Amino acid sequence: MDLVALEEIKRVKYRYLRCVDMKLWDDVADTLAPEAVADYGTPAKGKPLQLDGREAIVGFLRENLENALITTHFASQPELEIDGDTAAGTWAFEDKVISVEHGVLIAGAAFYEDRYRRCEDGQWRITHTGYTRTYEYTASLKDLPSLKFTANRWARS
Amino acid sequence: MDLVALEEIKRVKYRYLRCVDMKLWDDVADTLAPEAVADYGTPAKGKPLQLDGREAIVGFLRENLENALITTHFASQPELEIDGDTAAGTWAFEDKVISVEHGVLIAGAAFYEDRYRRCEDGQWRITHTGYTRTYEYTASLKDLPSLKFTANRWARS
Amino acid sequence: MDLVALEEIKRVKYRYLRCVDMKLWDDVADTLAPEAVADYGTPAKGKPLQLDGREAIVGFLRENLENALITTHFASQPELEIDGDTAAGTWAFEDKVISVEHGVLIAGAAFYEDRYRRCEDGQWRITHTGYTRTYEYTASLKDLPSLKFTANRWARS
Repeated sequence: MDLVALEEIKRVKYRYLRCVDMKLWDDVADTLAPEAVADYGTPAKGKPLQLDGREAIVGFLRENLENALITTHFASQPELEIDGDTAAGTWAFEDKVISVEHGVLIAGAAFYEDRYRRCEDGQWRITHTGYTRTYEYTASLKDLPSLKFTANRWARS
Repeated sequence: MDLVALEEIKRVKYRYLRCVDMKLWDDVADTLAPEAVADYGTPAKGKPLQLDGREAIVGFLRENLENALITTHFASQPELEIDGDTAAGTWAFEDKVISVEHGVLIAGAAFYEDRYRRCEDGQWRITHTGYTRTYEYTASLKDLPSLKFTANRWARS
Repeated sequence: MDLVALEEIKRVKYRYLRCVDMKLWDDVADTLAPEAVADYGTPAKGKPLQLDGREAIVGFLRENLENALITTHFASQPELEIDGDTAAGTWAFEDKVISVEHGVLIAGAAFYEDRYRRCEDGQWRITHTGYTRTYEYTASLKDLPSLKFTANRWARS
């Protein structure tokens, strides 16, 4: 069992997730192989999303997760199999998208099914990321009239 | 510190959790030793559950987590001690059970206290799993009139 | 890559989180170096908290997370860098504070930025823990009139 590669693959996934939530788009790009494909099984926008190539993935994220949106992408439970310089595996996943401005919450859970490749520079990167939803819902924050945000990193000043 | 065994034990726990949520009952069974005992500290059904033996555990899960129920079992923070071919440890845990049909949510948190054994075939399996609840609540989804499911892997067609 | 040290550092963080939620204050103290500093970016009480020294941190937690409060501190996604006997890194983090008595929920997410030190006794301990909130909200449980607690480890008898 290649424990160092396992740790490196977990790290690139954690970096991807953190940098999506922190809107660090250049860092997100560096976690993806150029040929990376994303199948985000998120029907909130009407149909699941298929994005082909690092540029398309980062461009989509940059465009849609604009500054005023709060997102949390929380993954755990890695079950990874390494085969030389490629790897594949699953992760449990829970996420939230909150628009304070529009008073909307989207939340759900899934199991990621990812693939990875050790690139020419020795770094593991994501070549495929995707999931089928266990569930997803949307709700209006108006259903919770007492709810008050006490912190919002992305609040427009 | 036996890092390979640590990774293998984490893997069997992650597989158990994923396969419960994915309703893959034969795979759940393969994560349990034949003599496994479960003490699920879930009072929602009236009293904590004690299940004796792999067949009883899988039978209970199969019967109760019928297709229409959404579940998420999310564990992290393993603190595991290995002693030869046995191991024990704790995990932080959050779970949800959602019945879209009945408009009910059960949610809570706990710390798992598990024991494991390396079986004759070399695979680590769970010999005891259990938890005392930190908290658990039930709520009706009718309290959130705007809530709308946009995905449900287990929806009856 | 020092995989044993990585596992030890994860373990001390998990122990800190578990023992905060379990109100095991002496065990929390043992996860902190004497000179530890905490910057809890939790504005719910009016302003972020800065606590200087192990005694101040444990004293604050002991005083504020009194028995009747339910807390969950859930961290995952460690990205840790070790440099000899010191280390630093980030964690994704979600937490809840529930006062059943007052019918209040505080919930949020953040990324921890921690530092660690291998102490004279060979144990890794936290020297700095802190986070900036991604978001935090407070809400009254009265907005969910059907909500009923079926378990509460800290209920006053």
